[in-house]
Amino acid sequence: MDRINRQIHLKSRPIGMPDRENFEWVESPIPEPGENELLLRTLYLSVDPYMRGRMSDRKSYVPPYPLHDVIAGGVVAEVVESKSPDFKKGDIVESDYGWQTHAVVAARKARKLNPDLAPVTTALGTLGMPGLTAYFGLLDIGRPREGETVVISGAAGAVGMTVGQIAKLKGTRVVGIAGSDRKVQYLKEELGFDDAINYKTTENMREALKKTCPDGIDIYFDNVGGPVSDAALSLINRGARIPLCGQIALYNLEKPDVGPRIQSFLLINSALMKGFIVTDYAERFPEAYRDLTTWYREGKLKTKETIVEGFDNTVDAFLGLFKGENLGKQLVKV
Amino acid sequence: MDRINRQIHLKSRPIGMPDRENFEWVESPIPEPGENELLLRTLYLSVDPYMRGRMSDRKSYVPPYPLHDVIAGGVVAEVVESKSPDFKKGDIVESDYGWQTHAVVAARKARKLNPDLAPVTTALGTLGMPGLTAYFGLLDIGRPREGETVVISGAAGAVGMTVGQIAKLKGTRVVGIAGSDRKVQYLKEELGFDDAINYKTTENMREALKKTCPDGIDIYFDNVGGPVSDAALSLINRGARIPLCGQIALYNLEKPDVGPRIQSFLLINSALMKGFIVTDYAERFPEAYRDLTTWYREGKLKTKETIVEGFDNTVDAFLGLFKGENLGKQLVKV
Repeated sequence: MDRINRQIHLKSRPIGMPDRENFEWVESPIPEPGENELLLRTLYLSVDPYMRGRMSDRKSYVPPYPLHDVIAGGVVAEVVESKSPDFKKGDIVESDYGWQTHAVVAARKARKLNPDLAPVTTALGTLGMPGLTAYFGLLDIGRPREGETVVISGAAGAVGMTVGQIAKLKGTRVVGIAGSDRKVQYLKEELGFDDAINYKTTENMREALKKTCPDGIDIYFDNVGGPVSDAALSLINRGARIPLCGQIALYNLEKPDVGPRIQSFLLINSALMKGFIVTDYAERFPEAYRDLTTWYREGKLKTKETIVEGFDNTVDAFLGLFKGENLGKQLVKV
Repeated sequence: MDRINRQIHLKSRPIGMPDRENFEWVESPIPEPGENELLLRTLYLSVDPYMRGRMSDRKSYVPPYPLHDVIAGGVVAEVVESKSPDFKKGDIVESDYGWQTHAVVAARKARKLNPDLAPVTTALGTLGMPGLTAYFGLLDIGRPREGETVVISGAAGAVGMTVGQIAKLKGTRVVGIAGSDRKVQYLKEELGFDDAINYKTTENMREALKKTCPDGIDIYFDNVGGPVSDAALSLINRGARIPLCGQIALYNLEKPDVGPRIQSFLLINSALMKGFIVTDYAERFPEAYRDLTTWYREGKLKTKETIVEGFDNTVDAFLGLFKGENLGKQLVKV
């Protein structure tokens, strides 16, 4: 067995768009598991937009990554050695030890996956953190009602496409906003979105949204922020709900993010806007896992992944998120 | 009896700050009440910031005022003639027929006041629409918890000063933002606010707020919008709530209202921002009237009015709202 653990550390804090220089590749011996610990070998690791926030040293909803340490994030791994009665060699688990090929973790930090229920990669996407994020943001903050109009930005990402499919299950009209014609086509043809807009080729987003949302917008599920959101917010209906899930358009901004103030739109419409992070709902995860898995197995919830091969390509896969390269969940196969 | 009804109509829609030219004074005969109607004589009438919105012909939470018709709003009136079994001559009522000296209204459009419970003018302030607005905005959206910090903009207005007093009843630290040293002094010395800031003489609002809110801001009750709100929103805590009640700083703006986008602050703090109008809570008015009246009679809720004498001064009293002339509820004694 390869006795070397390969890790990617944060070498310096990016200013604006990160590049490869902000990261360092580090090799170290694979540690031995102690009592109630597992030695894991990474099969798939997750790269996510929120990680950009943790690379900066400023207040956010999760603490900044320390410098010169491994970048934490979701993984799917195989148990190589178990010192816990709850796991055996060969079990497949989800954990959160991040960008490294191996790790020793406490058994309680691993969630055993059942490969017969769904492909194990879904534990990092539709049946994992992005799926839970979609579930609670849409159902708890958005509270869709039949016949309403739901607009989703970043709709072809792991969260956005799950939001759209759940919104369809709830009987709403669903319009996605995404950044390529291929994504737009996928949302409409494969996922059953009622309509989708390529914001990169649309000159006037407000007019385009107005045309495809003749009854206005009841829920705007926001993953991106910036001018796309300005357009959507100007079309909200009375009683609209706006779950704020992400602001990927801003994560690499070097200047202040300035735009039309939105309070007037919220005020005259008695509308609600709420930021959230999936861990706000930790106590309700079992309910969400149950519903998501049921919908998945009934074929009502499709999953889509973009998988890059090779641990060495992890940073490039991460940087690709900000160029809109991924359709669905971006993973690295280690 | 004076048989002439005097009214103030909207003559033209203001652009930017309204002036007297936007209004016309009209005289007409006093109508006769029909079955189940009352002839009322205005004692006090209300001028409110929200009226500015209704003078423009654009989407808002209430329909625009029609041109060449009386400007609707709250009044306290005396029954001159009653064709309803529920009212008798001399009763004092609250109604909403607006800027005129007399009116005939359906009996169901009048709410009988008990002058023994509280001065009748309170029906237009602390025990009326502004009081209800404060009550629901703070308690239903803000949901104050003991020990939290509540910041209120427009704190010396009818809504703001009621919000602050209820927030104190709930055991919070209360900081008001107002536009004169006299108002600041009043809030601190008469109403028991923990601190207050004169935004007109404060160079750096963010620093001033930071100093007086060492534990951050849990509730920002917003009556004003604009840069004052930008400063407050940059200091919110995790789980903060922001009831949006008004945006008086913007009502007369002729250019687009642009500022730092606030979504990031809401996102990283899982914070909630919600617009509302008091009529959203119409079904719960009885509960609020009961609580407000109880607090008032127990001396826990003080009321303050600025009363201008003479129907002819109505427009000037209204314009004065935007110059920050009023302390508490601005009324006109007819």
